[in-house]
Amino acid sequence: MITYQTPVLAEWVDYNGHLRDAFYLLIFSYATDAFMARIGIDPQRDQHSLFTLECHLNYLHEVKLGAEVQVRTRVLAHDRKRVQVYHTLHLQNADEVLAASEQMLLHVDLQGPRSAVFGEASLAVLAEAFEAQRQQPAAEYAGRRIALPG
Amino acid sequence: MITYQTPVLAEWVDYNGHLRDAFYLLIFSYATDAFMARIGIDPQRDQHSLFTLECHLNYLHEVKLGAEVQVRTRVLAHDRKRVQVYHTLHLQNADEVLAASEQMLLHVDLQGPRSAVFGEASLAVLAEAFEAQRQQPAAEYAGRRIALPG
Repeated sequence: MITYQTPVLAEWVDYNGHLRDAFYLLIFSYATDAFMARIGIDPQRDQHSLFTLECHLNYLHEVKLGAEVQVRTRVLAHDRKRVQVYHTLHLQNADEVLAASEQMLLHVDLQGPRSAVFGEASLAVLAEAFEAQRQQPAAEYAGRRIALPG
Repeated sequence: MITYQTPVLAEWVDYNGHLRDAFYLLIFSYATDAFMARIGIDPQRDQHSLFTLECHLNYLHEVKLGAEVQVRTRVLAHDRKRVQVYHTLHLQNADEVLAASEQMLLHVDLQGPRSAVFGEASLAVLAEAFEAQRQQPAAEYAGRRIALPG
């Protein structure tokens, strides 16, 4: 599913006009916010949210000031409190992957804060998203560990 | 080595006053810039830089608006073109780890751009930093792969 679209803004680029590493993650973070809304969680309405526990990023191509980019999001796995998502960054309507991010997100009741089981409606959307992405090619940059080659 | 210190700024926090996931990485990104200077690389002077290839983050504690934080950086490994660093985020002068980030960085000649061998002076600093950190406790959040528990 497409979760976020944006032009690359001037405040996100370095002096060479290239998107800085942290701002790839900011774009993915906004995509996570949009994903959260899709599964029916609204922190300001119902005092629940998703917290990022862990995150992995692969940087594959430079992205320039003003480029129109979009994030596509898959649900790689979930249980009753956690969801493992996979975001990829693309130029609009292009298949090439500019960057990928795998993330483990925890459903949290902000009134604790404490971890909380997803509502039934959220679980239904997660199950559907998980099934839909199984038709797609493998998530190429998922499951990685950082190490020097050879 | 301490590579970066900053208060947590208003533009980095969410509506609850907590540091957003991407801005932990921005703080680590500034620490990488400072680390690059420590090993004698200055993009504007000598047209070489470090590019982030891959990054892993573990979020351990919330960090609030205005907190004074610092980044400590270790060299976990390197070869002649790449360096694997490990950043941890702390409150100033506190040992508790608020977040950790392992990163693989590539030395790049910006005139290509193409990967480039580190200069001898940089290699000497890298070797010294690698030796210094071997005295320390293991890098707890290095080498991880994202997966649902159990």
